[in-house]
Amino acid sequence: MITRKEVADRAGVSVAVVSYVLNNRSIVKEETRQKVLAVINELGYRPNQTARSLKTRKTGQIAVLVHFVGNPFEGGLLLYIEKKAKLSNYSVFFHSFEPAREEELKNTLMGRVDGILLLGQTLSEESQAFYNLMELPVVSLMHPGVSMPSIPVVDVDWIAEMRRLIVHLREQGHEQIAFMTAGDPQDPIAHRLIAFREAMRLEGLNLPEPFILEGAGRFERAFEALTTTLTQGFDFTALIAANDLMAAGCLAACRESGILVPQQLAVAGCEDILMSSQVSPALTTICYPRMEVGLEATELLLSLIDGDNRTTPRLEGKLSVRASTVENPLKVKSYSN
Amino acid sequence: MITRKEVADRAGVSVAVVSYVLNNRSIVKEETRQKVLAVINELGYRPNQTARSLKTRKTGQIAVLVHFVGNPFEGGLLLYIEKKAKLSNYSVFFHSFEPAREEELKNTLMGRVDGILLLGQTLSEESQAFYNLMELPVVSLMHPGVSMPSIPVVDVDWIAEMRRLIVHLREQGHEQIAFMTAGDPQDPIAHRLIAFREAMRLEGLNLPEPFILEGAGRFERAFEALTTTLTQGFDFTALIAANDLMAAGCLAACRESGILVPQQLAVAGCEDILMSSQVSPALTTICYPRMEVGLEATELLLSLIDGDNRTTPRLEGKLSVRASTVENPLKVKSYSN
Repeated sequence: MITRKEVADRAGVSVAVVSYVLNNRSIVKEETRQKVLAVINELGYRPNQTARSLKTRKTGQIAVLVHFVGNPFEGGLLLYIEKKAKLSNYSVFFHSFEPAREEELKNTLMGRVDGILLLGQTLSEESQAFYNLMELPVVSLMHPGVSMPSIPVVDVDWIAEMRRLIVHLREQGHEQIAFMTAGDPQDPIAHRLIAFREAMRLEGLNLPEPFILEGAGRFERAFEALTTTLTQGFDFTALIAANDLMAAGCLAACRESGILVPQQLAVAGCEDILMSSQVSPALTTICYPRMEVGLEATELLLSLIDGDNRTTPRLEGKLSVRASTVENPLKVKSYSN
Repeated sequence: MITRKEVADRAGVSVAVVSYVLNNRSIVKEETRQKVLAVINELGYRPNQTARSLKTRKTGQIAVLVHFVGNPFEGGLLLYIEKKAKLSNYSVFFHSFEPAREEELKNTLMGRVDGILLLGQTLSEESQAFYNLMELPVVSLMHPGVSMPSIPVVDVDWIAEMRRLIVHLREQGHEQIAFMTAGDPQDPIAHRLIAFREAMRLEGLNLPEPFILEGAGRFERAFEALTTTLTQGFDFTALIAANDLMAAGCLAACRESGILVPQQLAVAGCEDILMSSQVSPALTTICYPRMEVGLEATELLLSLIDGDNRTTPRLEGKLSVRASTVENPLKVKSYSN
């Protein structure tokens, strides 16, 4: 096993400096830090190997890095994360950080948590390498807006979910299907636009350019964006919003603009938050398995913390068909799986 | 200034033991710990006095202890807490703890945060005394379910808010007004029932015993509770729910049971979350000033961290009158302040 001393010798620094780098202390010059990290990677040094195998040094805490605490979709996931963690005697901290403060985050988390769950937030390549080196496991709930190849993702297969929704809309006679996305490619729901495009292609609805609206993931912004579009005239007959808050904003926009849903425009969402079944008309939406995703992602993280290998589970949603896409939803067959 | 040595001498222990007690280390026997804490209180010893006056030892972090992360009402408050904290370069951790783990919480927070915001959670008397001794400021958003006299509260005056809502309901001809509460007296919304009773008394609607339902603060439980009541027969004409999730559950129960809202039963809520304006019929509710409460509570906490004294602000909500209490809400005068 490689020792800290060997790393120090190869890098031409003292053992103390190696420790400072491992603890991410700011007193080390950037140049030195990079050199030490390079040697650590080269030699394959693993600081916590012994400690880990003895299952010691546990803090009993995990951190959840949240993108937007104001969305009830994420709130619902947090409940299940908490529940699962509690069963294993872990306590959970929620935090949302700005990319500019990612360095600071390392200092905050190192030695204080045993693992990290990403709930819509992404880590830079350097941070991924850092946590990997520190053997601090990271699991992402939801496919991230940007690719993080080394981090396991617990999520549904969005292409399959979108195909099921598109098939339903086609059965109602829709081929001109617009999509509302957040706008920011780093946004965690950006992945759903990619899946929509691919699902449209697979369903043979290869539009030259489907109509894409941007609603920033929020009710108000979606309301404004669709209101503008409705005023200017539109040639799509159905609209899928990448989350339910935006879909609800779209329903409100139709109501205000006197557009009948679903007769003049069918509207669908992507999460099935509580609100979606209570709005008027009730929203057809992809019912996201929040409980399963929350529980499975937490279980995967806890397994990784214990040093066990476990495959990433495959989860599936279902379609909740309601009055926003069909005039009499009771007559539609169930799309549950 | 009292020194640690003086505390040790008076308590008949070593200076190290005093330090252990101050750092909440579990190696000290409970009896010894109590003795040391008694001496600390008696002598008025303040461990961080010097550090504080030099404005050092800041961690740049505050903890928010959340009761229920699944409620969009609390999610909305969190957004403003984050926003305000960020402006002062503070990062925020959200956490919900079980009362049984309150001791553990001390170890987690001490030395890691500069202050605590309570968002629906309560602290035991002992914890309050501990944080007070450690000069770790605590501020509560919302009147807590149980009294915590030493902790400043940033909230609306619920009696005044309830009176405004009751006046509105009386104008619509209602005198038999039922109330749905959470049930658990420790629940953060329990305070709203106390305010309702007092407001009814002040408005001269001193019913021998108003009809009280319990909905556990959740949509589903409220739906079940009201459905049962509607089945059994009821003699109230209006119902106020202590939060909007329960009010939405009540609207759904009326819909399922064929009870017309507001003609057969007027329904009102207490928060004005996004969903409340989008349900059918739209919900009349007390519009809680979430932005102001979130910003002011955080500002108060940051002031206390900086050692400044600041009075607790008085905040006011307004009434959002919608179709769940009046058939034509456009004709009703505004109750905004």
